[in-house]
Amino acid sequence: MTLEVGVLGYRFMGKAHANAMARLPMFFPDAPEIERSVLVGRDEDALTEAAARLGFVSISTDWVEVVDDVDVFYNLGPNHVHREPSVAALEAGTPVFCEKPLAPTLEEAGVMAEAARAAGDDVPAGCAFNYRFVPAIRYAKRLLEDGDLGELRHVRGRYLQDWLVDPDAPWSWRNDAELAGSGALGDLGAHTVDLLRFLVGSDDLAGGIERVSGHLQTFVDERPVEDDDGETRPVTVDDAYSAHLEFENGAMGTIEASRFATGHKNDHTIEIHGSNGSLRFSLERLNELEVLREGDRGYETILVTDENDPYVDHWWPPGHVLGWEHTFVHENYEFLSAVANGHAFEPNFDDGLAAQQVLDAIERSDDRGGWVSP
Amino acid sequence: MTLEVGVLGYRFMGKAHANAMARLPMFFPDAPEIERSVLVGRDEDALTEAAARLGFVSISTDWVEVVDDVDVFYNLGPNHVHREPSVAALEAGTPVFCEKPLAPTLEEAGVMAEAARAAGDDVPAGCAFNYRFVPAIRYAKRLLEDGDLGELRHVRGRYLQDWLVDPDAPWSWRNDAELAGSGALGDLGAHTVDLLRFLVGSDDLAGGIERVSGHLQTFVDERPVEDDDGETRPVTVDDAYSAHLEFENGAMGTIEASRFATGHKNDHTIEIHGSNGSLRFSLERLNELEVLREGDRGYETILVTDENDPYVDHWWPPGHVLGWEHTFVHENYEFLSAVANGHAFEPNFDDGLAAQQVLDAIERSDDRGGWVSP
Amino acid sequence: MTLEVGVLGYRFMGKAHANAMARLPMFFPDAPEIERSVLVGRDEDALTEAAARLGFVSISTDWVEVVDDVDVFYNLGPNHVHREPSVAALEAGTPVFCEKPLAPTLEEAGVMAEAARAAGDDVPAGCAFNYRFVPAIRYAKRLLEDGDLGELRHVRGRYLQDWLVDPDAPWSWRNDAELAGSGALGDLGAHTVDLLRFLVGSDDLAGGIERVSGHLQTFVDERPVEDDDGETRPVTVDDAYSAHLEFENGAMGTIEASRFATGHKNDHTIEIHGSNGSLRFSLERLNELEVLREGDRGYETILVTDENDPYVDHWWPPGHVLGWEHTFVHENYEFLSAVANGHAFEPNFDDGLAAQQVLDAIERSDDRGGWVSP
Amino acid sequence: MTLEVGVLGYRFMGKAHANAMARLPMFFPDAPEIERSVLVGRDEDALTEAAARLGFVSISTDWVEVVDDVDVFYNLGPNHVHREPSVAALEAGTPVFCEKPLAPTLEEAGVMAEAARAAGDDVPAGCAFNYRFVPAIRYAKRLLEDGDLGELRHVRGRYLQDWLVDPDAPWSWRNDAELAGSGALGDLGAHTVDLLRFLVGSDDLAGGIERVSGHLQTFVDERPVEDDDGETRPVTVDDAYSAHLEFENGAMGTIEASRFATGHKNDHTIEIHGSNGSLRFSLERLNELEVLREGDRGYETILVTDENDPYVDHWWPPGHVLGWEHTFVHENYEFLSAVANGHAFEPNFDDGLAAQQVLDAIERSDDRGGWVSP
Repeated sequence: MTLEVGVLGYRFMGKAHANAMARLPMFFPDAPEIERSVLVGRDEDALTEAAARLGFVSISTDWVEVVDDVDVFYNLGPNHVHREPSVAALEAGTPVFCEKPLAPTLEEAGVMAEAARAAGDDVPAGCAFNYRFVPAIRYAKRLLEDGDLGELRHVRGRYLQDWLVDPDAPWSWRNDAELAGSGALGDLGAHTVDLLRFLVGSDDLAGGIERVSGHLQTFVDERPVEDDDGETRPVTVDDAYSAHLEFENGAMGTIEASRFATGHKNDHTIEIHGSNGSLRFSLERLNELEVLREGDRGYETILVTDENDPYVDHWWPPGHVLGWEHTFVHENYEFLSAVANGHAFEPNFDDGLAAQQVLDAIERSDDRGGWVSP
Repeated sequence: MTLEVGVLGYRFMGKAHANAMARLPMFFPDAPEIERSVLVGRDEDALTEAAARLGFVSISTDWVEVVDDVDVFYNLGPNHVHREPSVAALEAGTPVFCEKPLAPTLEEAGVMAEAARAAGDDVPAGCAFNYRFVPAIRYAKRLLEDGDLGELRHVRGRYLQDWLVDPDAPWSWRNDAELAGSGALGDLGAHTVDLLRFLVGSDDLAGGIERVSGHLQTFVDERPVEDDDGETRPVTVDDAYSAHLEFENGAMGTIEASRFATGHKNDHTIEIHGSNGSLRFSLERLNELEVLREGDRGYETILVTDENDPYVDHWWPPGHVLGWEHTFVHENYEFLSAVANGHAFEPNFDDGLAAQQVLDAIERSDDRGGWVSP
Repeated sequence: MTLEVGVLGYRFMGKAHANAMARLPMFFPDAPEIERSVLVGRDEDALTEAAARLGFVSISTDWVEVVDDVDVFYNLGPNHVHREPSVAALEAGTPVFCEKPLAPTLEEAGVMAEAARAAGDDVPAGCAFNYRFVPAIRYAKRLLEDGDLGELRHVRGRYLQDWLVDPDAPWSWRNDAELAGSGALGDLGAHTVDLLRFLVGSDDLAGGIERVSGHLQTFVDERPVEDDDGETRPVTVDDAYSAHLEFENGAMGTIEASRFATGHKNDHTIEIHGSNGSLRFSLERLNELEVLREGDRGYETILVTDENDPYVDHWWPPGHVLGWEHTFVHENYEFLSAVANGHAFEPNFDDGLAAQQVLDAIERSDDRGGWVSP
Repeated sequence: MTLEVGVLGYRFMGKAHANAMARLPMFFPDAPEIERSVLVGRDEDALTEAAARLGFVSISTDWVEVVDDVDVFYNLGPNHVHREPSVAALEAGTPVFCEKPLAPTLEEAGVMAEAARAAGDDVPAGCAFNYRFVPAIRYAKRLLEDGDLGELRHVRGRYLQDWLVDPDAPWSWRNDAELAGSGALGDLGAHTVDLLRFLVGSDDLAGGIERVSGHLQTFVDERPVEDDDGETRPVTVDDAYSAHLEFENGAMGTIEASRFATGHKNDHTIEIHGSNGSLRFSLERLNELEVLREGDRGYETILVTDENDPYVDHWWPPGHVLGWEHTFVHENYEFLSAVANGHAFEPNFDDGLAAQQVLDAIERSDDRGGWVSP
C-alpha cells in the first residue's frame, strides 16, 4: 500500500520534507512506499510551480478536504496555522507531522496534544524536531543512557543567528506575536529545549526541568515592510532570550538564543557535564561529537560517520560527511515507518507540548521577574 | 528532449551519481531532463536489485551496445575498465563521464584523452574530480583568480585514510597493480593533484608543475582474501606516497596520501601560501574555508553557506550545512548541462591525463630515486 | 629609591606575585626598584622556607607592624583576612595590592573601598584582577573602545573548573562561607564580572549592569577533612552559579562558573557580540583572540604576540607565546609604577567593590528568586 | 659551590637563557647554585647595558680567557662563532651549552662533536634544542616509549614563519651562507629533525633516518641592507626547504620549513601516525597535545598542565598555562644539574651533529637531485 501524503507549506520546510521523502527509496529501501500526493497553500500559481518542482501530484487551496483524503498530513505552515488543520486531521484519523514549535501559544499546543491523545496511538502525531535525528546526537544519547557521563551537573544550550542584526532587515511573520507566538524563544529555543529533554530528560539522568528563570529582549522595536516605501511594522516578539534551568536532580541548565549574534548563522551548540564525563556538539559541525569519558584528560573529537553510527550505514563510507538536510530524511523515515506500522513515534505532540511548557514558563518568568515552574 | 543515461557500475560511485541525478529536478530546475536509463554490470541479480533501488529503467550486462544506445555514458567501474568502454562510447559520439583516476596507466589515459579529442568539443568527456565542486573550493578559486593571495609560494595537499592499518584488512582490487594501477597515489593523490591544478595551475598563478620527486611505500606486502580460509594475495601497489613539487614560478609543493594514517577517515586538506595571503581547506569540514588576506593577522574561518556562495542558493539558508554527496550533484549538473548544450566541460579527459602525468612522474621518480618532469 | 614590599601569603598567589616582582628588572627595566622585603604569615617554619625560596629578606608573623613599615603591602591571604590588614595599611598611608575577591562580604568590601578613598589618590589600593593584563584582553579592549564591534548586544562569560567533581575531594577554606564568602561565585565569578566591567562597562559601550538574576547550587553538601579519618565538614558555599545580566543599553549577559565541569581545568571564556562584530577569548589559549569585524564572514584567529601588541615588546619575538604567569608581571609592573609615581591604578578597590556588588546581587537574587539591582 | 657561568651573546638567546637561569632558584630549588658571572661580546657599551639588565656580574670582549675562567660556558652567538669558542672551552675542561644548529657546516659540527667526546663524559657539552623540554613533547615521548602508538608509519614536521614574505625585509646574517650555514633548513629544520630524532629515533620505534630527499628554494635573491640607502646584499641561503625521509623500519617522513608562510609566526607542528595511534603537537599551542590511542575514534585534546605532567609540578596548578620561555628553564635546569653532578646531558653535541648530518644530507640531495643517506 502506498501512503498518500498531503503537505501544507511549500517554502523552506516544504522543500526540506519533500526532499526527504524523495530520497527514502534509494537510501532507506525498507521505508513505506509513499506518494507526494497533494501540496496545500493559498496562492495557486506559486503552488503549481512548487508542486512541479517538489514532485507533488496535485495541489489544493483548501486544507479542509485534504486532511480527510490523505493517509498522512504534514503541517509545515507558519506557527499560527498549526493548530486548526492538525486537529482536523487527527479528528479524521489522519496521522500528522507538524513543524515546531507546536503552536504559537501554550493553550493551542495543549489543544493539539489533547487531539493527538484522543486520536490514539495508531494515529501518530509527530512534532518535527529534526535535530533529534543527527547521528552525533543519537550517539550522544546512547552515551548518556549507558551512564558514561555519570550524574548530570550542567547542561548548556545556545542557538545563535544574526539575520536581524541590521535594523533595516525587513519585517516578517517571525517578528509578530500573533503569527509566531514568540521570536528567538519559540523558533530557536524550542529546538534547544527539545534536544535537552531528549538527551537528559529521563529519570535516570537529570529528570525533568523543575523550574526556570527567563529573560527576553527586543533590541529593535520596528522594522520596514519589504518592498514598501517607508512603512514599518512593530516587532512584538523577542529578538533574543536567555534562561536558567533547574532539573529535578539539581543539575543546572543555561540556555539562550539570539537573532543578533553577529557572525553566527545557524550555530546551535549543546554542552553537558556529568560526574564522569562531558560532551559538546555544534550544529555547524554536525558530523562531529566531542566526548570526554572517565579517565580521559580532554575531549575526543569523534567524526560520527562510521557504519555503526546511527543511520550512517544507509549513506556513505566513513569520513564522507552528511549535511543538515539528512536529519529530515531520518525523521521522515522514522515517522512514515511509524505510520505504516501503526507504531508510536517520538517526538510526538506531547513532546511538542512539553517544550512549549518550558518556553511558556520562560516567558512567564520574564514577565514576573522570578522563577516559575513549567 | 530527455537525455538517456547509461551507467556502468552500481556500488559506491554508482550510488553517488544516481543520487545526484535524482536530486537535480528539485534543486537545479534548469538542469536538462534526464532518465536513468540503463545500469550496466556483470551480475544480473545484483544489477536488478541495484537498478530498482537506484531508479534505473533497465539493466544490461553488455556495455558494448549501451554506449551506442544512450545519450550519455557514465563509466564508474574499477580503474581497469575505464579505457575500453569510454573509448567505445566516444567513438560512437556518446558523451562520457568517467570516474577518476582516468586509467590505471599513463598510456591508457593517453589513449582515452586522444579519443576525447577526436570526438570533438560537442561530445563532452568529463573526468569526475568531484572536489572541484565543493562550494568552499570554488570560493577559494575565486580568491586565487582575483589575486587575493598574491604570488604563490607554497602549496600543500594531504589525503589521509586508515582503512589498511590493520594488516588483516582484506585484499581488494584496490591493492592490485593490474586492476588499480596504483594505490594511495592513484586513488587519493589523483584528487590532490587535480585540486592543485584547478586552484593554482594557471599562468597567472603558479603555472604548471615543472618537476616532481616522489616516494612510495608499501607497509604490508600481502593481505588475506575475504571469506577465504588462509589464502592471501600480494599487495602490488603503494600504501602511501609523498612527493615534492616544483611549479613553474618556483613555488614549492608537498603532497602525500596514506591508507595507514590511524584515526583519519577521509581527511583531505589543502593549504596555500601566497605573498599576500594564505588559505586552508579540509574535506572533513567541507563547509568551511580558512582565509588570511592582506592586512589580516590570522585565518578567518568562513562558513561557505551564504546564498552568494557557489551553488549554495540552490540549497538551504545560511548555516544549513551541505555534505559530501552535494559535490556530486554540482558536478552532475555542470556535466549534464554541458552535454545538453554542447558546451565544453571541465575537468575533462585532458585534465584526467594531466593528473595522471603527475602521478606517473611521481612513480618514475620513486623508481629512479631522483627528480623527473611530468 | 627602592620600594620595600611586604607580602602577606606565601602559597599559590604568594609565589605568583614574588615571581612577577623578581622578573621586572630584566623585562621591564623602567619599573621602580623594589625589594621583596618581608614575608608575612603564621607558621614560622613554613615562612622561613618560603622566604628563602621566594627571595624575601625577612619574615614576620605579625602583619600589624609590617603594614606600617613597608612602602607597599600585598595582601594575598585567604578572603577573610583581606579587610583588616588592608585597611590598617591604608590608614598608615601604605599602598595596598589585594587579591580578589576583595572581601568575603559586600559589607567588608565597602569598608575597604571606603578606606582606600580616605587614603587618597596617591596611595594606590589595587585589586589584583590579573586577567585585565592578558595582552589579548587589552587588545580586545582597544577594539571595543574604538567602536569596532558597534553597539553591544550580548556578553557571555564562563569559568569552568573540575576540582570538586569527586565527592571525596577534601574540604578546604574555599568551601566555607565564613572564610571564603562564597564559592565558585566569588572565586571565579569575580574574575568574569571584572573582565566584563573592564571590557564593556563604559557609557560608550554597554554601560553598567542594571539588574541581575542569579542561580547558585551546591552539589555536594559535605566533604572529608584531609588526612583526618572519617571527619567531614559542611560545604557552605556554592559549587556553581549562573546569572543573567541586563546592561544599561539593554545588552544581555549570561555568566556562569563551576567547580564541577568535568574535564575543564581553568577554562575562562569571554564572548561578545555587537552590532558590527564579535569576539571570543579563552584563557586556556590566552595568546589568541578571535575577532569578527564589519565585513568579515567569520572569526579571525589572531595570535596576539606581535611587538605592537600590549606588553609583548617586553618579551619575545612574534609567535613565542606567553603563559598565565605573565599577567602577574604586567599587573605588578603597572601597580608598582603607580605606587612609585603616585598615580592612580586600576583595577582599584572601587573596582573590587563594584564586582562584589554584582556578586552580592547574584546571591540576593538567588535567595529571593527574582531579579535585583547591584 | 656556586657555578660561575659565562655567556657569549646577549640578544634574543642571551635574554632567553639569562631569564631561565634567573628563575631556577624559585621554581627548581634543587638546581645547582649559579652566578651569571660574565657576559661576552664585542660592543662594550651594548654589553654593559645588557649585563646590567640580564643580571651579569661582569663583561668581557674576549672569549678566550672567559672559557677558561668560568665553570660553564654558554655559546649563544651566531652560528659561525659556535665552533671556535666551544672547542676552546671543552679543551679547557669547561662544560659548554651551545645554541642550535651546532655549526654552519657539517665539518665544523664534526670538529665540535669530536672535541666534546675528547673532553669526556664529566664535561657536558649540550646542544640547546629547547623544544625537547616542552612538557607536551616529553609526554608524547613517554607515550611513544610505552609503545602506545604501535609501529610507526608516518612522521610529519613543519615549521612555518613569514618574516621574509616582504621582499623588502632587510638582509641579516641569517640570509648569508657564510655566517648562518643555511637558511630555513638550519634555523628551523634543525629543530624539526632533532624533535623527530628525540621522539622516534630509537630502535624500538622507527630507528634512524636511512635516506632523505630534499628540496631547497630561495624566493628572493637579494635584500636591502637596513638603514642603508639602496644597498642590497645577496641571499645565499634557502628561504624554504622540504624533504622526504625514510626511516630504518620503513616509516615515511615529510618535513618542511619556510620563512614565506604568510600569516604563520612560529608555527612548528609535529604529527605521528603509528599502527595503534596518532599524535599531533603545535608550538603555538604548546600546552596541548592531541592523542589518539588504540580504541579511540578521534584525537583527544590534552592540556598538559597537570601536576603529574613533566616539569609542571614546579610551576602552577592545572590549567595555568606555560609559555615558550619555560622550555629554557627546563633545559637550563637539566643542563646545569648535569654539570653540577658530572652527569651526561642530552641533547649533546653528538645529537647536534646527528641533526646536522640530516640537514647536510638534505642539501646534498637538493644538489644532486636524488636521495642520499645522512
